[in-house]
Amino acid sequence: MASKVVLAYSGGLDTSVILHWLKAQGHEVFAYVANVGQDEDFEAAAKLARQIGAADVRVVDLREALVRDFLFPAIQGNAVYESRYLLGTALARPLIAQHQMALAEEVGARAVSHGATGKGNDQVRFELAYYGLDPTIEVIAPWKMETFLSQFQGRTDLLAYARDHGIPTTASPSKPYSEDENLIHVSHEAGVLEDPAFEPPQSLYSMTRSPFEAPDRETRINLRYKDGVPIRVENLDDGRVETAPLALFIYLNDLGRENAIGRIDIVENRFVGIKSRGVYETPGATILHAAHRDIEGIAMDREVLRLRNMLSPKFAELIYNGFWFSPEMDFLRAAIHTSQDVVDGDVKIALYKGNVTILGRSSPSSLYDPALASMDIAGGYDQKDAEGFIRVHAVRLRAHHAIIKSRSGSGEMDAAE
Amino acid sequence: MASKVVLAYSGGLDTSVILHWLKAQGHEVFAYVANVGQDEDFEAAAKLARQIGAADVRVVDLREALVRDFLFPAIQGNAVYESRYLLGTALARPLIAQHQMALAEEVGARAVSHGATGKGNDQVRFELAYYGLDPTIEVIAPWKMETFLSQFQGRTDLLAYARDHGIPTTASPSKPYSEDENLIHVSHEAGVLEDPAFEPPQSLYSMTRSPFEAPDRETRINLRYKDGVPIRVENLDDGRVETAPLALFIYLNDLGRENAIGRIDIVENRFVGIKSRGVYETPGATILHAAHRDIEGIAMDREVLRLRNMLSPKFAELIYNGFWFSPEMDFLRAAIHTSQDVVDGDVKIALYKGNVTILGRSSPSSLYDPALASMDIAGGYDQKDAEGFIRVHAVRLRAHHAIIKSRSGSGEMDAAE
Amino acid sequence: MASKVVLAYSGGLDTSVILHWLKAQGHEVFAYVANVGQDEDFEAAAKLARQIGAADVRVVDLREALVRDFLFPAIQGNAVYESRYLLGTALARPLIAQHQMALAEEVGARAVSHGATGKGNDQVRFELAYYGLDPTIEVIAPWKMETFLSQFQGRTDLLAYARDHGIPTTASPSKPYSEDENLIHVSHEAGVLEDPAFEPPQSLYSMTRSPFEAPDRETRINLRYKDGVPIRVENLDDGRVETAPLALFIYLNDLGRENAIGRIDIVENRFVGIKSRGVYETPGATILHAAHRDIEGIAMDREVLRLRNMLSPKFAELIYNGFWFSPEMDFLRAAIHTSQDVVDGDVKIALYKGNVTILGRSSPSSLYDPALASMDIAGGYDQKDAEGFIRVHAVRLRAHHAIIKSRSGSGEMDAAE
Amino acid sequence: MASKVVLAYSGGLDTSVILHWLKAQGHEVFAYVANVGQDEDFEAAAKLARQIGAADVRVVDLREALVRDFLFPAIQGNAVYESRYLLGTALARPLIAQHQMALAEEVGARAVSHGATGKGNDQVRFELAYYGLDPTIEVIAPWKMETFLSQFQGRTDLLAYARDHGIPTTASPSKPYSEDENLIHVSHEAGVLEDPAFEPPQSLYSMTRSPFEAPDRETRINLRYKDGVPIRVENLDDGRVETAPLALFIYLNDLGRENAIGRIDIVENRFVGIKSRGVYETPGATILHAAHRDIEGIAMDREVLRLRNMLSPKFAELIYNGFWFSPEMDFLRAAIHTSQDVVDGDVKIALYKGNVTILGRSSPSSLYDPALASMDIAGGYDQKDAEGFIRVHAVRLRAHHAIIKSRSGSGEMDAAE
Repeated sequence: MASKVVLAYSGGLDTSVILHWLKAQGHEVFAYVANVGQDEDFEAAAKLARQIGAADVRVVDLREALVRDFLFPAIQGNAVYESRYLLGTALARPLIAQHQMALAEEVGARAVSHGATGKGNDQVRFELAYYGLDPTIEVIAPWKMETFLSQFQGRTDLLAYARDHGIPTTASPSKPYSEDENLIHVSHEAGVLEDPAFEPPQSLYSMTRSPFEAPDRETRINLRYKDGVPIRVENLDDGRVETAPLALFIYLNDLGRENAIGRIDIVENRFVGIKSRGVYETPGATILHAAHRDIEGIAMDREVLRLRNMLSPKFAELIYNGFWFSPEMDFLRAAIHTSQDVVDGDVKIALYKGNVTILGRSSPSSLYDPALASMDIAGGYDQKDAEGFIRVHAVRLRAHHAIIKSRSGSGEMDAAE
Repeated sequence: MASKVVLAYSGGLDTSVILHWLKAQGHEVFAYVANVGQDEDFEAAAKLARQIGAADVRVVDLREALVRDFLFPAIQGNAVYESRYLLGTALARPLIAQHQMALAEEVGARAVSHGATGKGNDQVRFELAYYGLDPTIEVIAPWKMETFLSQFQGRTDLLAYARDHGIPTTASPSKPYSEDENLIHVSHEAGVLEDPAFEPPQSLYSMTRSPFEAPDRETRINLRYKDGVPIRVENLDDGRVETAPLALFIYLNDLGRENAIGRIDIVENRFVGIKSRGVYETPGATILHAAHRDIEGIAMDREVLRLRNMLSPKFAELIYNGFWFSPEMDFLRAAIHTSQDVVDGDVKIALYKGNVTILGRSSPSSLYDPALASMDIAGGYDQKDAEGFIRVHAVRLRAHHAIIKSRSGSGEMDAAE
Repeated sequence: MASKVVLAYSGGLDTSVILHWLKAQGHEVFAYVANVGQDEDFEAAAKLARQIGAADVRVVDLREALVRDFLFPAIQGNAVYESRYLLGTALARPLIAQHQMALAEEVGARAVSHGATGKGNDQVRFELAYYGLDPTIEVIAPWKMETFLSQFQGRTDLLAYARDHGIPTTASPSKPYSEDENLIHVSHEAGVLEDPAFEPPQSLYSMTRSPFEAPDRETRINLRYKDGVPIRVENLDDGRVETAPLALFIYLNDLGRENAIGRIDIVENRFVGIKSRGVYETPGATILHAAHRDIEGIAMDREVLRLRNMLSPKFAELIYNGFWFSPEMDFLRAAIHTSQDVVDGDVKIALYKGNVTILGRSSPSSLYDPALASMDIAGGYDQKDAEGFIRVHAVRLRAHHAIIKSRSGSGEMDAAE
Repeated sequence: MASKVVLAYSGGLDTSVILHWLKAQGHEVFAYVANVGQDEDFEAAAKLARQIGAADVRVVDLREALVRDFLFPAIQGNAVYESRYLLGTALARPLIAQHQMALAEEVGARAVSHGATGKGNDQVRFELAYYGLDPTIEVIAPWKMETFLSQFQGRTDLLAYARDHGIPTTASPSKPYSEDENLIHVSHEAGVLEDPAFEPPQSLYSMTRSPFEAPDRETRINLRYKDGVPIRVENLDDGRVETAPLALFIYLNDLGRENAIGRIDIVENRFVGIKSRGVYETPGATILHAAHRDIEGIAMDREVLRLRNMLSPKFAELIYNGFWFSPEMDFLRAAIHTSQDVVDGDVKIALYKGNVTILGRSSPSSLYDPALASMDIAGGYDQKDAEGFIRVHAVRLRAHHAIIKSRSGSGEMDAAE
């Protein structure tokens, strides 16, 4: 009696071999193809899965959920890993896992499988999501199983197995580095990029134009936020407007791509303790982050900003490490949600050859509100008040100085008496 | 040709069996007995190890190092795990590991071994310390090895093995919970204590008197700190003084034991993700922590205190999790060291039936210094200054209120225009 | 035409003189007496205010609001200032100010007044609350006004003014330190206590018995929390039960008083930059804090606990500094509220001569739940997993060690090439 | 007998009038002109001060100190205020104050004076520095003194006073916003910029070229850090090398200016509680920050990075608020210094039309070190270890899920029993 397994299937060589191998181990394999915006022929993938022997195949369009339920909350919380990485891959993994688990429940499978290897972040993200969603799920990760590893040492073994078992493989030559692509970003890493001093060639970039080839004139847009979420983009040059989450984001990606926005090259710290060099292209989300930070500047109270900023690095770390479905993430997301109450307003932006330039902003929560000025709130203290403010803040500094001074010169205290 | 292993040996059943088993596996085993102040016959343990077949035995007295190099820095940093646990066991583990590694280097062993199990914190503390001190060391942890586990399911198997191989075992009946003891504390956990609602009987406590049986009169002492380190204790009743780290601490332990100081009962979070209930007795260190916090109150600048307090929970967590030998611990210890520059002074304390009562304190860094008062520094602002101080601090609150008020009633912003 | 002022009136000498003085300045003064549980004859105070010339007098019973809306949220957030002070006075001030502002609105007053001086925390707490609740309010703080200060240098001037204007004064001799009392605590400071080494006499304490005089047998209680809020106390000796917030807290105060619970003596840092020595008695709240922390230990997820613990010191600081009505407090309170979702359960406690001893606890959120154990969740990893866990955590430490080692001995990098 | 005052003198209208006014009040005024790299005729300023009546004039070149002792430490600590502002003005103020105080001591003055107004940050920075360096100093801030303010309401009054007292004024028309310039940056604020939606014209920028006018080819450089401090820049196009702090920084400023680097436009939060819009140009420091963050990525341990990152926002806030000379800053600087031990290496960068693009980096502390790889440290765990790592991390998540699930459906706990 075959036990059911839902496999996260990409249509590539690895998961094709895994699908066949799982079946050979006696499993009834359901192939699950997640559309998170990567450039792929989903129909061809589905057909291939069936051909290899999948009991059933499901292609799920997760693009809108990715934008609305994962990217936008990350924008609200200024989730930037190690000050630079915008978490494009990390945001997609729990979503993919979530729908894989839903499919498992639907078909009555008690096990799920994925093709991620044992040195990376993605295995962690997938598996923590699985366990966080169902503590009793069984996880089959062939790249960490002795039986699989003893059979497959590398790509050559996979190709041989495919040939031997009639699994079609594409003729396209593999790149000298690996990539992960979704609607938010494309990442490039490993291979020739492992040398952190190696300069990536322009040909590596696939989701953005080069600054050298970007248009010679800037593109001006207006971005509107409500409760920290982007709700409207307007191209100030041609008047085009988008408001639906997916359409708005795809349009920002287009504008970003044209204007060479969002390329970074960093050495980051993986959860498993290894440093890793990554080159990322994140056009639309780079614009959203810059504008969100700007609207927070005008609309958020200073001390709320400070407190929320204490949480943002931890928020980014949890996303990166794969703890989307965890009690601590629920806690952080609730806190961040609260902080976005008055983060409303418009940001005017110019996009030009890699630059996201803030031109101005306005907010109904702004301290520059004329109604406020007339109430004399913002200016509600006179010059004498400032003197008192400073003098009281100086009390501590003056005392400290006086003590330090009085102590030097006098004898030190010691144990004897 | 036998490979050399240094085994952390306690003289108990587990490590005695492990010693013999390692030898049976073809190792040349060096038994290492660490004296961290536990109540044990070290000579008997050494003799037993030789009898079982140790190539050599070494008993090392680590008590002074434990107090001076591990406990005192923990006091300086107010290292309290989850607000209550004073880390008695966690502080001893890296010290034990450190000297085990030194012995390994001395005898030319490339492997070390310990008898900790796979569900606890100690395995982590030992092994992270080993790896942190020598990245190439081999760790042999029988309780996580299939070959060992298949042979030994529990105490019965150990006893049978001991009998079969002529390993002497003590006749003392085992307690219905497990204990770990050293100079700093004794811990009680597992067994009947696993029910978090189970009330520990008075007979469980071994390092402190019960408050009910403690003396009816208080004991008064004066503790002196220099740079956050205790350098002198004086019994104000009988004039006894101790200044050497080990003697000072042993004396505080005695005073604490007599006066029922330092019992706690908590449910804590282990590094491996399990909650665990522990009952601890930490007489001397409880007094040192209370007094250190008090002297910091008078001698440390407010904002330095705030910043250091941000680091203390992380400091405690690193100690608990076993990261004593790590770059982040080096960083934290350097920062904490800096913060203790002016943490000097005397604290007068009464010990009475479980209470550590602060009676008063004085410090050369105190703001109450008469020289200061005459300079009119502490009072160096007049009443009008306070008004300005408050009015400027209120600017933000007033603006916030005015905005919230002005926004309710007006229409909300949305994507349409 | 007299402008209306609402004065926070205590019935004491200071505010009696201020009431008369404000009237003399042409104000129509409304006397507002807040009952926050202090030991006072409110009727006599009201009568006195009328006699001095108050346009009207209002005595408001704020005791239940103090417990339910201020103390319990502070317990939920583990609000402890500088690791020791439980904020008894600081919690009452915004409540007093809130109802003073409500009264001002009711009678149409555009100004409020208080008798706090310019060196303490209370002026800040009152005034930030006023401004936070109504940015346009006028604050009259006589002890910071030149006109008032030039007339009144100290107590002698106040007494003379009282005599000259027929204001009755009590004959009771003043204590050699000042006190503030409410339902939560009594504080003692200033005067003879200004010497931080001065040992407070037993006669100073008014809200708790001395440990020496407390009963020779312990009192056992059970405290139940729901969402981090105490909802039921039961005396396990006599079966008495209280569940209503005010009754529950008053009963805990009684038990705490009898058993000498909650005395502390600290040097704390005021918002205005001065250090200050305070002796506090906080019987009931000390029990609530200890039990809350214990129930969190069993019911809260480890990482949620860590994150919330990052916020608690800031929460306590904001309460201490007077920022109860502020956007950052709204943010923190929302975050803390979220963290208390599963903080449910019972804590068994013994009270004895100053000790709050936790005897055991149970919680429906506990990891020790038998249903959990049978699912094998808590033990859901085998010994080999622990090895992997440790080895991956050690990757970073081993690399660090290897680098440090490889770098020493090699030449240092410099600017020349 | 005239009391001596050292005035921070700029040569502009305000401080010229203040100089004359102080003298008219009976002071002996020493004019102190700080050269922090602003574009100014220092000889003319000195001559003018003498002409107005300064007892003496001192022009001090602080440029190298600004770079070495203030900017470089800020780079080491990643000091960025509110995630964007690089603190150009804030870094110069304590340095200016420090030398003003030194001059005061030299000439025997017990008072210092400055021309900053009562609504801004600079008054705070100057005065906290004065008090922090000498608790007994007297500060004369005319723009907060009633006697001065009653005489001077605005620019017109200043001009009239200058005319009446023969103080020469420049004919140059004032800009419709205010500026502050030094070697690090130029700031533009107030005036027409007070409308946060107002788009600054290209003509406003004075320290950087527009991206539109920047060269059409990139400039490639290599920056070398040692202990987090830049020690060498090399232009990879023409081979020019600079190593001395001031020369290196001036050269980076030149390269940044040419390539349109470092323009930002933000709404920031002032210490006095007001929001303020600022437009800044910070060419060289923008490059230094980007490269420093990159070299930290490869050379710093992950957990040290996390801990230091917790401190950086506070570090930036203290600089912004004027607490350079404070105990908490001493503490932070010591901690940050420790964190920079291994922050060594080279970063290759392209500068192009506003972009600072990291092309690659190398470091002697890198985990990619070949020596490391051969020791198999970075890869020192096998695939099975990853499984254990994940499974142990999942223990907590699985338990949490199981509890939440088991609790829903069962009755809630309440106070009744």
